Amino acid sequence: MANELTHLDEKGQARMVDVGDKAHTQREATATATIFMQPETLQMIVEGKHKKGDVMATARIAGIMAAKRTPDLIPMCHPLMITSVKVELTPDPERSCVEISATCKTVGQTGIEIEALTSASVAALTLYDMCKAVDRGMVIDQVKLLEKKGGKSGHWQRQDEQA
Amino acid sequence: MANELTHLDEKGQARMVDVGDKAHTQREATATATIFMQPETLQMIVEGKHKKGDVMATARIAGIMAAKRTPDLIPMCHPLMITSVKVELTPDPERSCVEISATCKTVGQTGIEIEALTSASVAALTLYDMCKAVDRGMVIDQVKLLEKKGGKSGHWQRQDEQA
Amino acid sequence: MANELTHLDEKGQARMVDVGDKAHTQREATATATIFMQPETLQMIVEGKHKKGDVMATARIAGIMAAKRTPDLIPMCHPLMITSVKVELTPDPERSCVEISATCKTVGQTGIEIEALTSASVAALTLYDMCKAVDRGMVIDQVKLLEKKGGKSGHWQRQDEQA
Amino acid sequence: MANELTHLDEKGQARMVDVGDKAHTQREATATATIFMQPETLQMIVEGKHKKGDVMATARIAGIMAAKRTPDLIPMCHPLMITSVKVELTPDPERSCVEISATCKTVGQTGIEIEALTSASVAALTLYDMCKAVDRGMVIDQVKLLEKKGGKSGHWQRQDEQA
Amino acid sequence: MANELTHLDEKGQARMVDVGDKAHTQREATATATIFMQPETLQMIVEGKHKKGDVMATARIAGIMAAKRTPDLIPMCHPLMITSVKVELTPDPERSCVEISATCKTVGQTGIEIEALTSASVAALTLYDMCKAVDRGMVIDQVKLLEKKGGKSGHWQRQDEQA
Amino acid sequence: MANELTHLDEKGQARMVDVGDKAHTQREATATATIFMQPETLQMIVEGKHKKGDVMATARIAGIMAAKRTPDLIPMCHPLMITSVKVELTPDPERSCVEISATCKTVGQTGIEIEALTSASVAALTLYDMCKAVDRGMVIDQVKLLEKKGGKSGHWQRQDEQA
Repeated sequence: MANELTHLDEKGQARMVDVGDKAHTQREATATATIFMQPETLQMIVEGKHKKGDVMATARIAGIMAAKRTPDLIPMCHPLMITSVKVELTPDPERSCVEISATCKTVGQTGIEIEALTSASVAALTLYDMCKAVDRGMVIDQVKLLEKKGGKSGHWQRQDEQA
Repeated sequence: MANELTHLDEKGQARMVDVGDKAHTQREATATATIFMQPETLQMIVEGKHKKGDVMATARIAGIMAAKRTPDLIPMCHPLMITSVKVELTPDPERSCVEISATCKTVGQTGIEIEALTSASVAALTLYDMCKAVDRGMVIDQVKLLEKKGGKSGHWQRQDEQA
Repeated sequence: MANELTHLDEKGQARMVDVGDKAHTQREATATATIFMQPETLQMIVEGKHKKGDVMATARIAGIMAAKRTPDLIPMCHPLMITSVKVELTPDPERSCVEISATCKTVGQTGIEIEALTSASVAALTLYDMCKAVDRGMVIDQVKLLEKKGGKSGHWQRQDEQA
Repeated sequence: MANELTHLDEKGQARMVDVGDKAHTQREATATATIFMQPETLQMIVEGKHKKGDVMATARIAGIMAAKRTPDLIPMCHPLMITSVKVELTPDPERSCVEISATCKTVGQTGIEIEALTSASVAALTLYDMCKAVDRGMVIDQVKLLEKKGGKSGHWQRQDEQA
Repeated sequence: MANELTHLDEKGQARMVDVGDKAHTQREATATATIFMQPETLQMIVEGKHKKGDVMATARIAGIMAAKRTPDLIPMCHPLMITSVKVELTPDPERSCVEISATCKTVGQTGIEIEALTSASVAALTLYDMCKAVDRGMVIDQVKLLEKKGGKSGHWQRQDEQA
Repeated sequence: MANELTHLDEKGQARMVDVGDKAHTQREATATATIFMQPETLQMIVEGKHKKGDVMATARIAGIMAAKRTPDLIPMCHPLMITSVKVELTPDPERSCVEISATCKTVGQTGIEIEALTSASVAALTLYDMCKAVDRGMVIDQVKLLEKKGGKSGHWQRQDEQA
């Protein structure tokens, strides 16, 4: 890995680092997030009367749209042409949580990790918003990169899933 | 607390719930997030050559701006007139993390919890983006509401900080 | 009705008309749109394997979010605090179409008609986007105001549904 | 044409379909919309004192800008680099309407049909907004794709203009 | 005037200052900008074949829309409900420039000066964009507040127009 | 230089000019702006207690983010993939001003001059916003292109710095 923060210049000032000379390659990143809630809340979403309700769909769509808004939110993030976004939400009744996974792809000069992380985060925040009237104490945890492919630094995979 | 998801109608379809009859009150919410990183990464930000660098400032500003973008990101979230946002980042060398706290205020008909959570999340994501060249494995944890005031449901404070 | 275009000044130049002296009242508007498609396309959405699929939910959510983006899209439109949005999609197999209805509410100094019309339009455009791989010839028709309440001009209701 | 909805996965969940392997080709799409109004309203715009007024220009500019905002509005729509937008408004006194035509071009991996449709729709909605003080009953009709070129599916042209 | 920068806290960190206790008053601000260009460029806009062209209208509309986008652009700027925007462009052949004036109004808890300045700036930048193919050397000068009314600090008027 | 305004068609109507046939080349532009203020204001930012404060960082970050928002603000501006942005602020106590320089790069079919100008303008407006509580009379001057490289028209450099 690099030993310096690329988004700072020699004076420590923020800049959008120059990627103009990097190769156009196929890039992909997967990030995850977990949102913990009361068992009753989870039940309302997955087993109860709202089984076919829009809670999961709303979070999924919000996550996909947020990937596209990433350069508007993250100051030094380069704009890029997203070619694919997939957001999956998997309820886990045993741990009383929903696991969120977001995979983004692009063909470009810069990585797509931050888009995947933003997508997973906003999907989780949307679940919070949809359920906050019944469960204000929900906690979003373990927002992290799982894997990335492409670019100069190549393939990277998280070693310790408990990290 | 309510026993139903207000953002769904009787058919389980997403809607932006009607707040037109709610009182205009002073509202406030504080949310937190924690981002864990390698000790060397933390050191680069707080002790090293980039002491006066823009890393913390960039995250702080991104968090403040994200609070204003919340209704663009969270589908059922009402627009509201934010009257104050304050984002604090506190490095914790012992736990090798940065603690983020975001406090938002408004005078309006709907709560400001989701704005505070979005602000803390985006500040954390920005730290990730600023440092990802040196530490791709950073994890954002414990994104949660700490306290909220105002509105019909009144004062709420998280009981179990470890939740 | 007025006999002049309020968004033009005396020289015919566009301006955002001054509403600062208008009363804050509860306002509401309902707009509709209809999207015609091949019978097979409609069947895929409502009866087929994608019965519980996200097509309708995606259009509904896009319509709700678009209501919030209206002042970014319509140049002379005032920003306002939307207090409620509801988008309904009703498949009509006989006419081989989906009927879309969008109702928006606010408490403010200016009407919310254009938000309702934008919401219905974007929901229809989203249905187009979701189905375009199978039916490029879909037509969006009858985007119009159905009813509005509140404000100085009071209650208005469309007389001729075939207009 | 395809026989499935590409923006849904096998479970019927919304996704932004992967276009990363599609060829970069020159693409073009033309969409139209028609807005019907009272003869007096049309006259105010085209013949009256506001002949040189900004009504048509405002709609034209709004349509062009909306094409660029399409991926922010339409959830599963890919971002793309628009290389050209042209919006034309043609008053038709006989039918008491304004015909709107929007042509968008890009060089990329995905079609530009939805951008052209969004552009024509927003131009029409802007005409509504500019004239609503004198004519609340205006109707937007026949929002549809006229022609598209480029991409794997090649040239497509609407057969039945009355469709 | 205050003797400290309100958008910084005691540690010098950026914050969105709390305006929640300020009174809701009618506020107004006028800002100006001047763009200097080659005499031939000015002539093309005002006297030549493009007399009725969209150059001025495009700049006017861009200025009005930019006023609404101000909180998205200026990090510590509070969102507010703009009630009126008026942008005027006056060609001055003697000085070979276009004078731009933007007046914004609101009823709220915070001033609208920065919206007026942003509006005038973006109108000027749009003139640059419209004319850059013929005159790359245009200069935008004298972007400044002319007058503001309302709020705790009351009426303020620029003393020295040459400042 | 061209002898016509490319963003107008033969009827004088605004359009986004077609760049689809232009070559993809490396492009770069540098723009500057100067903001004049009271000596005491400048001192507060650079020498006083806020030496390490966020004023300069906030302006720098706002300028970088604004470059990415340019196509949302400037109606006929093409979207493009920015590959680098650098904003520098240099206090000049003798002239009692801050000099702002913004350099943007892209690889694409259209120039990046307007992005650099927008970036410098928004950085200057942000300085105004951060300091307006102590100095309402600040003036932004000399917003202009300094140099551009790449594209069909090649290298251009401002001759007269006093222009």
